[in-house]
Amino acid sequence: MRRVLVIGIGAGDPEQVTVQAIRAINRADVVFVTEKGSEADELARVRREILARYREDGREPRVVALADPPRDRTASAYREAVDDWRHRRADLWERALVDELAGGQTGAFLVWGDPAIYDSTIAVLEEILARGRVALDYEVIPGISSIQALAARHRIPWARVGGAVQITTGRRLAAGLSQETDDVLVMLDSGCAFSTVAAEDVEIYWGAYVGTDDEILVSGRVHEVAAEIERRRRDARERKGWIMDSYLLRRPPTTAPRAR
Amino acid sequence: MRRVLVIGIGAGDPEQVTVQAIRAINRADVVFVTEKGSEADELARVRREILARYREDGREPRVVALADPPRDRTASAYREAVDDWRHRRADLWERALVDELAGGQTGAFLVWGDPAIYDSTIAVLEEILARGRVALDYEVIPGISSIQALAARHRIPWARVGGAVQITTGRRLAAGLSQETDDVLVMLDSGCAFSTVAAEDVEIYWGAYVGTDDEILVSGRVHEVAAEIERRRRDARERKGWIMDSYLLRRPPTTAPRAR
Repeated sequence: MRRVLVIGIGAGDPEQVTVQAIRAINRADVVFVTEKGSEADELARVRREILARYREDGREPRVVALADPPRDRTASAYREAVDDWRHRRADLWERALVDELAGGQTGAFLVWGDPAIYDSTIAVLEEILARGRVALDYEVIPGISSIQALAARHRIPWARVGGAVQITTGRRLAAGLSQETDDVLVMLDSGCAFSTVAAEDVEIYWGAYVGTDDEILVSGRVHEVAAEIERRRRDARERKGWIMDSYLLRRPPTTAPRAR
Repeated sequence: MRRVLVIGIGAGDPEQVTVQAIRAINRADVVFVTEKGSEADELARVRREILARYREDGREPRVVALADPPRDRTASAYREAVDDWRHRRADLWERALVDELAGGQTGAFLVWGDPAIYDSTIAVLEEILARGRVALDYEVIPGISSIQALAARHRIPWARVGGAVQITTGRRLAAGLSQETDDVLVMLDSGCAFSTVAAEDVEIYWGAYVGTDDEILVSGRVHEVAAEIERRRRDARERKGWIMDSYLLRRPPTTAPRAR
């Protein structure tokens, strides 16, 4: 039996790691890290920093890099493209678990943010389990998500008294703003979908690289700050080669516009 | 100028505290703790345990208990009752900040879960700031919320690929299940509102005291496990005098019922 730990390591600030995550890192014999495209270098650096900082003396888990299968981002069938990508991840991870982890050993996957929030690690492991070819047990350790770091830095709650909040994607927002909740948290938005609600009286609290030295925060009425966010987002992505951002949309406004 | 730290300390597992929260605890000269009704003793004990465990040698912040103003839970006007309660909290906290904290000192409020998720500390501080009688600056430190601990223990994501999730209250759920999202996280439910969706084909992942020795987890189709949850919830609340629970409702079901 192999043991796998799925460890949420926060959204980029190495201090936003829990004691539980630190202990989990120190239980791992092998740490699997998936490497993506352009953002790989910098995210890999922060991940190495977290490992080095929280590893106890004498503990030196072996780090195994897993090249992430390419994903067809141009496909019109989003769901199918993601499913296909996940199957190929499961193939790769299953082989890595067999090859790199001896029976009785513990492997760890480090996940940005929280493994429950728009992350596919749990789904890939469930697929491997369902195939039934590797005996493994896994455990999930929650982490601070980017949308929590965002709210903390803007000093705002996700919802208002007795209210509800929807967490959604840029893709879904582009199809229309929720009619059920006055507060909407948006992740995975590569196309500035907030601009589609500029005609409505909605506030936005936007942040990129929150909790890191590159942090950018902008807030105000969408129609007043959308152009500024688009510009700063484009500039930052060009400069760094990647961007990680999220935002809260709030309707109707409860405070005057503000930016910092 | 007084400085205030609003520190998310997780949902009950002392290991689900971040390094950032630990450092914040050690910056505080005074820790303010609000005491509520029946759950006071046990929650106060866990809070003291967190303080004692993470306080560096020589740091001994003074602990000031704030008796929470009573809230009219029978009022039909929920929003007004909460507003009134918040005003009285602001009165009390404003006085405590002046009396207990010297200029230049740092005070901390320890918040269960995450200060952004159904917690009123930020709103009370904003009210005190708006009154303009005390000069203070405050900072928010995110924490692991009970709904993250819940998902981690059930090993489930909050939403499915490309999907959205709504976070809502028992009160709102009782008025009807979301039609916009197939996944709904429910907090603040004192009346087992999940039973109102028993006629629909919905799965529930329920947990109480998650991350503590008293943890209870139940999952399955709502119509199959609702009675069990109601019974175990009632028994636990009678035994302990208080309960802290939350759950995810998932429609349509993706896996077979399971309970543990």
